[in-house]
Amino acid sequence: MELQFLGTGAGVPAKHRNVSGIALSLVSEINEVWLFDAGEGTQLQILRTNIRPRKIKKIFLTHLHGDHLFGLPGLLSSRSFQGGDEPLDDLEIYGPIGVKEFVQTSLRLSQSKLGYKIHFHELTEGGLLFDNKSFKVETLPLEHGILSFGFRITEKDHEGALQVEKLRELGIESGPIYGQIKAGRTIALDDGRVIDGKDFIGEKKKGRVITILGDTRKTKNAEILAYNADVLVHEATFEQGQEKMARRYFHSTNIEAASVAKDANVKKLLLTHISARYMIHDQKELEKQARTIFPNTHMVKDLEEVDIPFEN
Amino acid sequence: MELQFLGTGAGVPAKHRNVSGIALSLVSEINEVWLFDAGEGTQLQILRTNIRPRKIKKIFLTHLHGDHLFGLPGLLSSRSFQGGDEPLDDLEIYGPIGVKEFVQTSLRLSQSKLGYKIHFHELTEGGLLFDNKSFKVETLPLEHGILSFGFRITEKDHEGALQVEKLRELGIESGPIYGQIKAGRTIALDDGRVIDGKDFIGEKKKGRVITILGDTRKTKNAEILAYNADVLVHEATFEQGQEKMARRYFHSTNIEAASVAKDANVKKLLLTHISARYMIHDQKELEKQARTIFPNTHMVKDLEEVDIPFEN
Repeated sequence: MELQFLGTGAGVPAKHRNVSGIALSLVSEINEVWLFDAGEGTQLQILRTNIRPRKIKKIFLTHLHGDHLFGLPGLLSSRSFQGGDEPLDDLEIYGPIGVKEFVQTSLRLSQSKLGYKIHFHELTEGGLLFDNKSFKVETLPLEHGILSFGFRITEKDHEGALQVEKLRELGIESGPIYGQIKAGRTIALDDGRVIDGKDFIGEKKKGRVITILGDTRKTKNAEILAYNADVLVHEATFEQGQEKMARRYFHSTNIEAASVAKDANVKKLLLTHISARYMIHDQKELEKQARTIFPNTHMVKDLEEVDIPFEN
Repeated sequence: MELQFLGTGAGVPAKHRNVSGIALSLVSEINEVWLFDAGEGTQLQILRTNIRPRKIKKIFLTHLHGDHLFGLPGLLSSRSFQGGDEPLDDLEIYGPIGVKEFVQTSLRLSQSKLGYKIHFHELTEGGLLFDNKSFKVETLPLEHGILSFGFRITEKDHEGALQVEKLRELGIESGPIYGQIKAGRTIALDDGRVIDGKDFIGEKKKGRVITILGDTRKTKNAEILAYNADVLVHEATFEQGQEKMARRYFHSTNIEAASVAKDANVKKLLLTHISARYMIHDQKELEKQARTIFPNTHMVKDLEEVDIPFEN
C-alpha cells in the first residue's frame, strides 16, 4: 500500500507543482489503484509513474473545483486506449453531485466512446460508501464553500495466512488436514510426526487506516475522519500566521493541519495542496512550522511515493 | 509572428508529445496571442514558454475531440489569476457548436468565476470569421467524422511606415508636413533644404498567410484554405503506406499532407499531430518521406517555435 502524489499544488498549476491528484496503490492487496481527485494533467503525471491506468478501478473526487476535476475527462478517455486486447474493468466514480453531468457532457460533446462502463455514486452528504471483505470507505463533508468531502479508508485486518510453502517443504500436501492446521490444532501425521498448527500460520496484521481530505477550513469532521489513522493527507495551502486568510478562502494553514493531526492522534501527517507562492526551497521551513505542533509531519512533492507500512 | 507548438501528439498524450495546442504569437503585430486548440495540459506547456496567458485574446477550436479541447476550462480559469491588478481583456472563442455548452458546464459545476468576459462564436459551416484592419480569418469544414475546421489567417499588407526617427535626426519635427512626406511628395523646407518624401517611407510588406487545419482526411477544402500560404500546419497522424488506415480513422498521412502542400503551392509545410507510436528518433524518416513530395517540410516538436518571416 503506497500513496503517490501526482500533483501537490493549489488552484493553478506551477512548474514545480501540478494541481491535485493522489493515487493510492492497492496493487499488492487487491490489484487495484484508487485515485483521489484528477486535476488537469493527472494523466500526464501518470505517464511518469508505474501506474497502469487500466488498474484504476475507483476514482474519488473530493470536490468539483477545477484544479481537482479538469483532468478527469482526459483520463477516462485515455484509459480506453490502454487496455490492450483484454476487456477493461468497470470504473466507479464517487464524488459530489454534479460529477456525472460534467463527465457525461464532456464525453458527449467530444464524442468520446469508452470501452468500459462507469458507475457514478454522487454524494450530497456523509456516510458509508462501501464495506467489503478488504476495505471500508466512509466520507464526511468538510468546509470549503463548495461541497467538499474527506474520505476514511479502513483496511480490514489481515488474518494470519496458512504458510503453504513451509508445509510443502515438510512434505505435507494440501487436503482436509490444511483446515485443521489453519485452526491452530496440534496434529499427529500418518508418519508419526506431531506438528503444532500455530507454527504454520502467518502473523495477523491490523488493517491500516488512511484519511484523505478535500480542501477545507479547519473543521471537526476532519478530526473525526482522521481519528487514529495511520496516515492523514491534509491540505496546507497557507503557512503559519495566515489563519485569517485561510479562513476567508476556506483553506487551512500548515499549523491547522498539524493541529488536526495531533487532536486526531494520527501516526503520520502528509501536507499537500501547497500554494504556488511557496517554492520548493520553502518546504523545510513550512515543515518545521508544522512539526512544532505535530512532529511526524512531511510535506510531499509531485510524483513522491509514500509507503504505508503495517503497524509493528 | 511566430508559431509555437504546445502539443504535437495525437489522441493521447505521450511523454515526448503532449496533445494538441498551437500558439500564434502576434505580439509584435497587435500585442495579442491566438491559440488554436487546447488539449489537456496546454496551460502546463504555456508555463514552459514566454507566453503570458492574459495576452491570449482569441482561441480557435478546430474540433471538439478531447485531445483538442479538454485543456480549455483549466486555461480559462487560470487566465483569471494571471492578470495582476489590471483588468483582463475579453476573450473570443471560435469553435464548432457545442464549445459553449462545454465551457459553461465546466465553469458552472466547478463554480469557477472568471475575471473577464467570453464571447462565443459557434461554427456550423465555413465562412468569414472576421476582417479588420490587421487580419482576416476564414474557415472551411474538413473531413474528420466530427465537425472539424481549418483556418486561413491572412495578414493585411503593411503599408510603408513613416520613418519618424530619421526625420527627427534631420531636425524635421512632426506637424502637417509629416502628412505631405507620407504622401511621398517632394517638399522644400523653410531652411531651403529639399527632401523627397519617398526617402522617408519604410518598405511596404505583403501580409503573410498562415493556414492551420484541424484533424482531417485528405480533402479539397484543405487545399483551398492553404492556397499560396506562407505556412501550412497539417496533421500527419500516420506515415507513408498507411493511407487506408488514415482514411478509416479520418486522418492523414505525412504523404497526403505533403501533397496538399504541393497542390496548394504553399511555401512551408509544418507537420504535427503525430501518433504516439512514432518516437522522436523516427522524425527524420517521417520528414524524409514527406520531402519526396514537398521538399520544404518540417515536423515539429513540443515547445518548438517557428518564425514566419515576410516574403523577400
